[in-house]
Amino acid sequence: MTSQTDAPLSTDVLIVGAGPVGLFAAFEAGVIGLSCRIVDTIERIGGQCIELYPDKPIYDIPAIPICTARDLVDRLIEQCRPFDPPMHLGQCIESVERLDNGHWRARTDKGLTFDAAAILIAAGNGSFVPQRLTLDEAVPLEERHVHYSVRKQNDFAGKKVVVAGGGDSALDWALALRSVAKRVTLVHRRNGFSATDSSVTKMRQSVEAGEMDFIVGSIAALKAPDGTLESIEIRQVGNSMQLEADQLLVLYGLVADLGPIAKWGIDIQAGRIVVDTSNYESSCPGIFAAGDIAGYPNKQKLILSGFHEASLALRKAYNYAFPDKKRVHVHSSYDAKLAERVQASHV
Amino acid sequence: MTSQTDAPLSTDVLIVGAGPVGLFAAFEAGVIGLSCRIVDTIERIGGQCIELYPDKPIYDIPAIPICTARDLVDRLIEQCRPFDPPMHLGQCIESVERLDNGHWRARTDKGLTFDAAAILIAAGNGSFVPQRLTLDEAVPLEERHVHYSVRKQNDFAGKKVVVAGGGDSALDWALALRSVAKRVTLVHRRNGFSATDSSVTKMRQSVEAGEMDFIVGSIAALKAPDGTLESIEIRQVGNSMQLEADQLLVLYGLVADLGPIAKWGIDIQAGRIVVDTSNYESSCPGIFAAGDIAGYPNKQKLILSGFHEASLALRKAYNYAFPDKKRVHVHSSYDAKLAERVQASHV
Repeated sequence: MTSQTDAPLSTDVLIVGAGPVGLFAAFEAGVIGLSCRIVDTIERIGGQCIELYPDKPIYDIPAIPICTARDLVDRLIEQCRPFDPPMHLGQCIESVERLDNGHWRARTDKGLTFDAAAILIAAGNGSFVPQRLTLDEAVPLEERHVHYSVRKQNDFAGKKVVVAGGGDSALDWALALRSVAKRVTLVHRRNGFSATDSSVTKMRQSVEAGEMDFIVGSIAALKAPDGTLESIEIRQVGNSMQLEADQLLVLYGLVADLGPIAKWGIDIQAGRIVVDTSNYESSCPGIFAAGDIAGYPNKQKLILSGFHEASLALRKAYNYAFPDKKRVHVHSSYDAKLAERVQASHV
Repeated sequence: MTSQTDAPLSTDVLIVGAGPVGLFAAFEAGVIGLSCRIVDTIERIGGQCIELYPDKPIYDIPAIPICTARDLVDRLIEQCRPFDPPMHLGQCIESVERLDNGHWRARTDKGLTFDAAAILIAAGNGSFVPQRLTLDEAVPLEERHVHYSVRKQNDFAGKKVVVAGGGDSALDWALALRSVAKRVTLVHRRNGFSATDSSVTKMRQSVEAGEMDFIVGSIAALKAPDGTLESIEIRQVGNSMQLEADQLLVLYGLVADLGPIAKWGIDIQAGRIVVDTSNYESSCPGIFAAGDIAGYPNKQKLILSGFHEASLALRKAYNYAFPDKKRVHVHSSYDAKLAERVQASHV
């Protein structure tokens, strides 16, 4: 984590999310004469559809009978190229604060700050974070005894380690930690895995060879009388057992989470930002939401809806950036400046 | 005009308009399991963008950095091909009537009738109709003495004909009617024309040769004491004159008009159908509007907005077609039936 004390980066619209909707928003911002900057938690452009299903065909982008998420993102990057929006990747907006002039100051977890007349949140389903245990006693043990990722293997050196999960990362880490841990026990709710065959085979061979243990069951409770993990209750069909443990590594996969956005003070219902359907503005004036993260009656999670929502949001955002100017709608076919810009960018 | 007495054609959704939004609506209807039929006044598919600017580049279709209206329509025709929506072109819906079961019966000017659970109006700016005289006395004379198109040249045979207008069709008809009319007078508000040079030259030569007359001025009043046109008052700068006439042919060009839709009983404001922005339903339950014809606060005339509006409208329309079924949203990437259908249509 680096800290920067530079002056805030000024922009008309700060776009949160570099997925399809964020990219098209950058194009639309350019068309109507707004500067923008894009921030995304993920290090690469494309958002969740690139993360989740880069090569699956998408059929419902208007006028594109078939494309993959990768194609779609490439096309959108090309489309916004005439406006060359600056991208600030690998960081998330941790806090926003309203300034006296009605603009917003946003700060990332890497210490970057932005002053923006408007913010458009196009963050899809939010960030992907590790799915956590639902046990209250796990929270105070986080980082010391309960882990959702491996930061330093050394944390597990010489310890009785329990790895919970049945996917590739659970199996791979269980196998990897054998060399440093005192003992590794893999716990998974069934004797079947959603992992590559070779990892499953390797794990079973290792269990047979006595190098590690595997228990079918689920984590039911943690015992840590003095704030130090001592044992884990494993629930099995019809009974439960206590397993001695120093460290618990939970690898249940990733889930979508609004993350810090949930703490910005915007109205949120059922995990979605509540917006007005005529301009996709949230309960905070000047903060808009488009795409899957926006919620309203009859909302459909269609990428094409995100394009519309962003386009309308930006037209309202224009009023925040230029309160005294009236924007005149020009059909893109008759926008000579746009034509010139697009042609220049394709040379 | 043919008259048909066949049984009504039944469909889940009747789509009015075969432009980009109507075509994409047909695709979306297919995706969510609704049958549809498309009606359009114009004989060919593509709507107003094909009529008005077929070859101009469009830059703001998401993920398509540049395309022409023709490309766009071709792509949309390909996209809806898996569902092969029946097209009823060259006719317009003249009247709609609500049936006891809540469905709508629609009738075209060619006598075709439809029974539809829902109607989606995607008619762009409506139909293009001749711009009419704004004189009250012209209305009762229509078809007998005042004409906005030439149906039969014989109507003008042996008559004193006044042709009003300064475009190609005014000039061409003035020239053409010389051979049948007793006398042709062209009236245009200025001594300059928005017509091809060759037509202008031909007309000026004909006036010089004494074969026809040309008067600069505008039609100010019609005199028709017994319902029979006798003379036309022509207003000129600083004075006015009476011109004897039997027939008046007004060729002022085309203007967009809602046409019969304005008489369906739907709420209309400023020439747009008023819709709810969460489902694009009009004031009539089961009648929806999408694209340029839909009106709501902050409405932008973007083709991409029409795609969104149609998609949401169809999801509500589903409830009218299948009141007892709950539709489950499936991302197109995970819709195996759709994948199969698209692939089959591209063999």
